Amino acid sequence: MVNTLFLPELREMLAFEQESELREFCVALNPGRTAEFMEGLDDDEMWRVLQFAEPDRRAEIFSYFDEARQLSMLASEPAAETAVLIEEIPEDDRVDLIQGLPSEAVDEILKLLPASERRNIERLRSYAEGTAGALMTTEVAKLGERLTAVEALDELGRQASDLETIYYLYVVDDNNLLRGIVSTRQLVSSIKNKSRTLGEMMETDVVVALAGEDQESVAEKVERFNLLAIPVIDSGRQLLGIITHDDVIDVVREELTEDAQRIAAVAPLEGDFLQIGLMVLSYKRGLWLTILFFAALLTAFALRHYEDELAVHGWLVWFIPLIISSGGNSGSQSATLVITAMTGGEVKLTDLPKVLSREVCVSLLLGGFLSLIGFAVAIFVAPSILAATVIPATLLAVVFCGCLCGVTLPIMFKRLGLDPALMSNPFVAGIVDILGIVIYINVARLVLG
Amino acid sequence: MVNTLFLPELREMLAFEQESELREFCVALNPGRTAEFMEGLDDDEMWRVLQFAEPDRRAEIFSYFDEARQLSMLASEPAAETAVLIEEIPEDDRVDLIQGLPSEAVDEILKLLPASERRNIERLRSYAEGTAGALMTTEVAKLGERLTAVEALDELGRQASDLETIYYLYVVDDNNLLRGIVSTRQLVSSIKNKSRTLGEMMETDVVVALAGEDQESVAEKVERFNLLAIPVIDSGRQLLGIITHDDVIDVVREELTEDAQRIAAVAPLEGDFLQIGLMVLSYKRGLWLTILFFAALLTAFALRHYEDELAVHGWLVWFIPLIISSGGNSGSQSATLVITAMTGGEVKLTDLPKVLSREVCVSLLLGGFLSLIGFAVAIFVAPSILAATVIPATLLAVVFCGCLCGVTLPIMFKRLGLDPALMSNPFVAGIVDILGIVIYINVARLVLG
Repeated sequence: MVNTLFLPELREMLAFEQESELREFCVALNPGRTAEFMEGLDDDEMWRVLQFAEPDRRAEIFSYFDEARQLSMLASEPAAETAVLIEEIPEDDRVDLIQGLPSEAVDEILKLLPASERRNIERLRSYAEGTAGALMTTEVAKLGERLTAVEALDELGRQASDLETIYYLYVVDDNNLLRGIVSTRQLVSSIKNKSRTLGEMMETDVVVALAGEDQESVAEKVERFNLLAIPVIDSGRQLLGIITHDDVIDVVREELTEDAQRIAAVAPLEGDFLQIGLMVLSYKRGLWLTILFFAALLTAFALRHYEDELAVHGWLVWFIPLIISSGGNSGSQSATLVITAMTGGEVKLTDLPKVLSREVCVSLLLGGFLSLIGFAVAIFVAPSILAATVIPATLLAVVFCGCLCGVTLPIMFKRLGLDPALMSNPFVAGIVDILGIVIYINVARLVLG
Repeated sequence: MVNTLFLPELREMLAFEQESELREFCVALNPGRTAEFMEGLDDDEMWRVLQFAEPDRRAEIFSYFDEARQLSMLASEPAAETAVLIEEIPEDDRVDLIQGLPSEAVDEILKLLPASERRNIERLRSYAEGTAGALMTTEVAKLGERLTAVEALDELGRQASDLETIYYLYVVDDNNLLRGIVSTRQLVSSIKNKSRTLGEMMETDVVVALAGEDQESVAEKVERFNLLAIPVIDSGRQLLGIITHDDVIDVVREELTEDAQRIAAVAPLEGDFLQIGLMVLSYKRGLWLTILFFAALLTAFALRHYEDELAVHGWLVWFIPLIISSGGNSGSQSATLVITAMTGGEVKLTDLPKVLSREVCVSLLLGGFLSLIGFAVAIFVAPSILAATVIPATLLAVVFCGCLCGVTLPIMFKRLGLDPALMSNPFVAGIVDILGIVIYINVARLVLG
């Protein structure tokens, strides 16, 4: 919901160029809230209001707009003003933004930036998306190990306004090699002790990320070790930058959303659902739909193969959708539970026997219960009570097979080094569909002779 | 994978009671890594190694074991030792742990704790699970607004060892009402300015959580405003505690995992997949499976209703699974995309028209493509080319309806104030199944006369 509370006032202030009121508006609230109140303005109005904020405040407010707004402003507003803004945006965010701009706009903006900033942006852009290097910021508190706590605080005071985060200090030697880290908390606890140096306080066993490391592996480390930030180093242990906790939350969200999409047989979107091109979206969905379609075609051939049985016992046809959907639903429940449990680290490859034995119990319980309902219905429809037993017997077998496929396939996929979420629910369902029909007709043959 | 590198050495040290080596082992590495190397020990060995660490270090190492290990140690080791450990565990974590212990063990441990700690635990336990109160810690840096930066740093130095996080300082008045916050970064930048007080530096427009607020709403605020911690207040604006970023990552992970489970029609597990009781698990799955089963029963009645048509045109039966699975798969793709986009904030209720118009295009593209394949197959199976057109016409209509149901139902559910993920894929598929059969037979009637 767009917050429209201040819109009339803001527009009036702009119309009458009420400079002091607009300045006041930009500082009175916290920047996130200021951005919220501006959301209803159009791009041009937003941009004009932003010009009344100090450059660092302006960048902060700007960071709370959604990406589409940010990009459309950066692409259309005067390059001189956008360059000033870009300079103030934290490094890790501005590189992401620049990746989203048309290349002419990027060239124009880069030309207007100081050489050092330009080089910095170029370097960060060179890391592949999805790696630690692409997530990091180089604005990091680096200090020498011979400083005392008080000296370090003074130095930090000088650097603090340029840094995104100062919750850890990174101790480096003269060659910029990472030697250890000191948390601000340790530093603050040590200010009474005049002679203790960073070298004496620092933790030397530091959890680090390599620049080329996959972002999911980085997020896992940050979560496991409860870090606020993780240092990024190159293969020679040179400190390149840090990745901060807010980027890690984004990675976790992205990773789990992609899982959910893969589970539903959509290739991960890598973009905003409402922004992504329709042809790209159709392709990402169509690929899997087509594969599943061919799997489903097999059911058509299976049914054709059993043509004679179905002609004699016409009532069997009525239960086909019921049977395959029961198998498919229970299978996709199992697959989703195993996939989410593996992503969350609850289930490991070695747990397969335990998972299977538990699943056998659950599937028999579920299948047994559905069989009872199915039998009650079938009695009224089938020509005899004996004939009606085909339905519960099939349901029990289909739910059992569906559940076991559902838990086994994702674990097998993971063991093969593939993404278990690729073993999507519809895929499991596709396999269970065919199994279901084969089981159904063979049970019917057995019972009905 | 359990790290077994140090296991023989550790066991030897325990056997020969090599005190200094064990002490050294507990401090040499960072606590997370120490925990990793201990994972292969059994509970008793682990506990004995832990006794060689200083109490605060012991609690830190302990925090990296998985919850099942933590609980089994706390429940079985001597109560006096567990009470010492519990005292050192951060408040928000220890309350969670205590909730998992048998109530006799809890009573025994609580009796051994100092009265203030006991009261604190009792108070935190009184907040319902899933609320801000249950996530918070009361170990928070509270300072008066008249302190200068240097005085505040001194005070913080005294408090720091007891606090979980000092990345924001909370400024309160004499009645413990929250007046504002100062980040450590602002504080450190201000140490050169001797006279500036916290009251002058503080941000007064603070993003807060109410103690009873739902944890997902808290996580959303923390993500939106990029916070490291959020203060929790009561309705009178008294500062109760803070929620730290690591708990927020857990909430995001929990929320998205529950979404994925709901999408697959499983009531959220609220527990470890391998630990949860089989009856509970069967109930959580069986509830939805049964509902879906009744939905699928309707398809049986629909098919029975069309008995005569199916008897005359037997080949129509072969395509039943293909048609309903095409509708179901495309519908569950749409539903998953919309649900994940709503969870991620990309799609709002007001976006329905835009979502629908995009979906119309995508569904016609997808349906059209599948129709072509379907037609190619049907030509070989159907008695005539005219008859074969039943298949592509039905596929197009079914995919179209499946996609539109898939995007509309979750948005409608959200508008009704319900969880859109409840409008699970199998539910969408269930509706699309019946629609599919009705469409199929009616198209067939129209074409075949």
